[in-house]
Amino acid sequence: MPDQEKHFKMKDLLLGKALKNDEIKDEKLNLKWGLPIMASDAVSSVAYAIEEILLVLVPVLGLLSVHYLGIVALPIIILLIVLVFSYSQIIDHYPNGGGSYVVSKGNLGKKASLIAAAALIIDYIMTVAVSISSATAACVAAVPGLLGYQVPIALIFLSLVTLMNLRGVKESAKVFGLPTYGFILVMAALITIGLAKFLTGTLMPIEYAPSVLNSLPTSPAGALTTIAMVFLMLRAFSSGCSALTGVEAVSNAVPSFKQPSQKIAKHILYCLAGIIIFIFGGSVLLATQLGVIPVDGHTVLSQMGAAVFGTGPMYYILQFMTAAILLLAANTAYNGLPTLLAILAVDNYMPHRMAQRGQKLSFSNGILFIFFAAGGLIFLFNAETHKLIPLYAVGVFLSFTLAQTGMVVKWMKDKEPGWKHKMLINAFGAAMSLIGVIIVFTTKFTAGAWMLAIAIPVLVLLMQSIQKHYQSVADDIVLKPAEAREIYKPCSSQDNNPCIVLGSSFSRPFLKALNYANVVSRNVTVLHISTSDAGRESFEKLWREAAFPEQLVIIDAPYRDILPPLEDYIDKKQSELVNDEFLTVVFVKFISNQVIMDNILHGQAAYFIENRLKKYNKVASFVIHYTYNRKGRNERNKMKDKSGF
Amino acid sequence: MPDQEKHFKMKDLLLGKALKNDEIKDEKLNLKWGLPIMASDAVSSVAYAIEEILLVLVPVLGLLSVHYLGIVALPIIILLIVLVFSYSQIIDHYPNGGGSYVVSKGNLGKKASLIAAAALIIDYIMTVAVSISSATAACVAAVPGLLGYQVPIALIFLSLVTLMNLRGVKESAKVFGLPTYGFILVMAALITIGLAKFLTGTLMPIEYAPSVLNSLPTSPAGALTTIAMVFLMLRAFSSGCSALTGVEAVSNAVPSFKQPSQKIAKHILYCLAGIIIFIFGGSVLLATQLGVIPVDGHTVLSQMGAAVFGTGPMYYILQFMTAAILLLAANTAYNGLPTLLAILAVDNYMPHRMAQRGQKLSFSNGILFIFFAAGGLIFLFNAETHKLIPLYAVGVFLSFTLAQTGMVVKWMKDKEPGWKHKMLINAFGAAMSLIGVIIVFTTKFTAGAWMLAIAIPVLVLLMQSIQKHYQSVADDIVLKPAEAREIYKPCSSQDNNPCIVLGSSFSRPFLKALNYANVVSRNVTVLHISTSDAGRESFEKLWREAAFPEQLVIIDAPYRDILPPLEDYIDKKQSELVNDEFLTVVFVKFISNQVIMDNILHGQAAYFIENRLKKYNKVASFVIHYTYNRKGRNERNKMKDKSGF
Repeated sequence: MPDQEKHFKMKDLLLGKALKNDEIKDEKLNLKWGLPIMASDAVSSVAYAIEEILLVLVPVLGLLSVHYLGIVALPIIILLIVLVFSYSQIIDHYPNGGGSYVVSKGNLGKKASLIAAAALIIDYIMTVAVSISSATAACVAAVPGLLGYQVPIALIFLSLVTLMNLRGVKESAKVFGLPTYGFILVMAALITIGLAKFLTGTLMPIEYAPSVLNSLPTSPAGALTTIAMVFLMLRAFSSGCSALTGVEAVSNAVPSFKQPSQKIAKHILYCLAGIIIFIFGGSVLLATQLGVIPVDGHTVLSQMGAAVFGTGPMYYILQFMTAAILLLAANTAYNGLPTLLAILAVDNYMPHRMAQRGQKLSFSNGILFIFFAAGGLIFLFNAETHKLIPLYAVGVFLSFTLAQTGMVVKWMKDKEPGWKHKMLINAFGAAMSLIGVIIVFTTKFTAGAWMLAIAIPVLVLLMQSIQKHYQSVADDIVLKPAEAREIYKPCSSQDNNPCIVLGSSFSRPFLKALNYANVVSRNVTVLHISTSDAGRESFEKLWREAAFPEQLVIIDAPYRDILPPLEDYIDKKQSELVNDEFLTVVFVKFISNQVIMDNILHGQAAYFIENRLKKYNKVASFVIHYTYNRKGRNERNKMKDKSGF
Repeated sequence: MPDQEKHFKMKDLLLGKALKNDEIKDEKLNLKWGLPIMASDAVSSVAYAIEEILLVLVPVLGLLSVHYLGIVALPIIILLIVLVFSYSQIIDHYPNGGGSYVVSKGNLGKKASLIAAAALIIDYIMTVAVSISSATAACVAAVPGLLGYQVPIALIFLSLVTLMNLRGVKESAKVFGLPTYGFILVMAALITIGLAKFLTGTLMPIEYAPSVLNSLPTSPAGALTTIAMVFLMLRAFSSGCSALTGVEAVSNAVPSFKQPSQKIAKHILYCLAGIIIFIFGGSVLLATQLGVIPVDGHTVLSQMGAAVFGTGPMYYILQFMTAAILLLAANTAYNGLPTLLAILAVDNYMPHRMAQRGQKLSFSNGILFIFFAAGGLIFLFNAETHKLIPLYAVGVFLSFTLAQTGMVVKWMKDKEPGWKHKMLINAFGAAMSLIGVIIVFTTKFTAGAWMLAIAIPVLVLLMQSIQKHYQSVADDIVLKPAEAREIYKPCSSQDNNPCIVLGSSFSRPFLKALNYANVVSRNVTVLHISTSDAGRESFEKLWREAAFPEQLVIIDAPYRDILPPLEDYIDKKQSELVNDEFLTVVFVKFISNQVIMDNILHGQAAYFIENRLKKYNKVASFVIHYTYNRKGRNERNKMKDKSGF
């Protein structure tokens, strides 16, 4: 049906040509383009993980902090490996995606699965809001003239990422994939060159101005109690875990990959883990050798870049790629969340339209949901990253914990070969993730994480009530063919169902309605609701002259609003119906081809009438469209169209 | 029909009990309450006219200015008397109100009348915006804590005045009438006591600080050329003419008065003139004796009050009443403009709804129009009076000029007894008004009056295009009984008009639609538009099992949007219709009693379908309402309702 295309206009310009259902296979991702989409969130987190760890350590340990970087980084890398193992199992067992929601649903029950879903929804939205806000902050830092315009800039960025994603998975993968690969390459260069310089003895530790050094604490680590030290390390650990937030997304997005999708998803997961370990581990090593500490207005990554690359073009490429990857971190959420929402919609927990594919076969309603939710957050929090961060990362740890606990339960139920080892690994991962949840939640509680303690239960309740609504509708409308045959009434010409034609003026549109009414019913009454004496008299006079056989009923609307007397009349008429009879109300919607003229110059009585009639279960609205003909009578006479319309 | 009232809710709370058409006589104004409504604008102008005149004179003439007050005031009073004469003639000859619009229409032609109408509409709106902004400024001056909240305060005032007017003429007259009488009384006291003190030699001229006096020019009047002096006087004259702006309103509002309405209108006009002459003339005399000059932050009226009353309670009453009258000046426009708009609507120049009377028999749409237009101006101009004033007063002079020119033409045509004298008076008034237009327009041109040179023609064009639209609609739809008999088709059971039932799923709502379709047509086709293979297969299977006799047509929507294939199908079906046949499309609107649930959780396909079907002239929408039953199947079984709905 190629002339289908004549119907599309503005939408096509923005989104490109619509895709047919059977073109979906071309929209699926292979390893090459799937990897950067899934990696952008994780890799961008790495860019900041070292800084996050040092921000926890330096105020306590001063210059000694870098020596503890490795101690903190190792458990993060171990947790990553456990998570990769765990999610690769999840991908194997749940080929339709959904990650921790699906795992929890199968093994921990509905409630746990909804908590996982709520936590993930919030975390994905936060990821988008935080990464867009960070990218905006980077832009404003580079171009101070933009200061004060953060919110509009952030919303423009958000719109661009949204639009690209609405244009389809394949297209956005290519646009957003290249910068991700670029960032990975420049980080690889940083680490390789840095470590090569270190090995050849040409890497110099960064020297800080005395003013910076004097601001650092001088107490040695030994001065801390063991408990304080453990707690400090745990906090640093949970801060650094931001490096892991992209892992869940792969398992959510399994259906987005080409066949064999599970295999591709696992390959992506392994590559992702390799990249994270290389970049995160390498950066930690390099940072340790450089003795880097966070300084206001100069990120750790930028300091490391300057120390390794000097101030040549490579340094600027690193800076540019860092800004780009922050923006693209949002893109991972655009692939994970809509898939999750679609799975929830199929389970009746989200509006069904979340499961509908849009013009480009992406889950466009889910993408728009991200746009509005993240846009709302950016607006509410003024695009300020530090206000948003406390709300972030709790959700992803919660979903890790639930997913791995779910897997533990699954191993215990299914007892697959080798289940004991697998169970132990997952139990360990669950415990580490739980530590993450507890630490992040408690340390950030007053800074805003308390909102999650409200938002997650509210979201769970909302999803439950949506499910309840859909379930009760389905119970109501479902119909088996046998039942249908009982209810079905074949065509008969004996019916006597009453039909009311509303006539506000004796005019051509009214007569069109009357003629149509006479076709569909053998029991037509004309109803004129009078708002003024003059109107009633004019209608009555013309009606009498025309001398039509239908009964004319005139009722007064002394308060000039025709709806109340109309409702009273319909109430009465409906109550007089017997058995299966129903009442048809015929009225005219007056149409001209000028929308503004229609709405301003003509009363919209038809819309209000229809809206009032909705409540009557045995009343049907028969809407006649009268299209006003600008040339009017003259043209009609020329055309000699006897029907007159 | 007393149980009519059960339908009203929120609206009643805001507006009070609805009034019946025949209660309109109780809503008309008598002299006692009509006078203050019509006077509030005029009288409040007087409060500022002296200040306006002095603001023109003092920068040139310094302390000598007060001696010229009388020279400027006299022509203003003469013009007022001419206007009163002229408008009392207009009221006599045009009993249905409308003022200069109606006079111009009858004597100068359509174009002139539309210019007068446009000028008046703009001027009324400006009056509201300026007076509300001035009242706000007075409040903020009294309570500096409100600084920065001018726009919301002004909008609250505007809402209150609007709401009172929506509650009906009678009610607002009493609420707004008393403060107007209060202001008139306190001004009378000021003038009487002031002049009595002068006569007894106890009135002391106001003494100004040397800093004020030094800032004044010292050149005597003789130093000015005659032309400069004339021009100065003319400017002062046109500034002072703000005292006359309320006169036109009486003639616009004739239909709002009790019978005999023309007589009451004329009495109001005479009383109004008397009050203006007394207050304006008296204040000028008093100001001359006091040697008052405008000083920053201390209005002329307030200085006069302090000089006459001292700082006792009377002074504060004067200040309070001045603030109140500023707010109420808006009220005159609320009575003049809606009547004018209703007259224009009857002439097809404004949307017809402007002529409909609302719940309380006021022209509520006109009142709401003032609210939105003045609210928009307040918002755009930040409730700052000095930015609004240049747009003000041109319109009213223009309408004075046109009204009196129109009367001149009328006298020349009709040649009533004594027409020559009357014509001369009107010609003199027209000339003086024209001087006002020219001076106000030229002196304020760059400050914003240029906008009127755009706004008035735009408004005229808009009114003309509205009239053209209504005229061409009327040409199209008007139908004589004889023509109606030709077009009319009586009920027949032989019809074969096709009917299409849209079935998206095989469900209870679909079967309800099918049954209704079989009642209204003997030629039913079921159309399933398929967006997914799974949906199509399920529908086909159930349909086959049910084995109904209707034809099933299945078409694909490969782009998942059902509307384009539906339109293609209807296009084809409509083109196949012969003679007077028409096509009925039956579809279900799914209703639950929760509006939010309806809109978020269920697709609104029915609304989109109906919207697309509008364009087909030979297609009628038959809308079946299926009200979802929360209790569902169980309740139905209990009720044993065979029809199943």
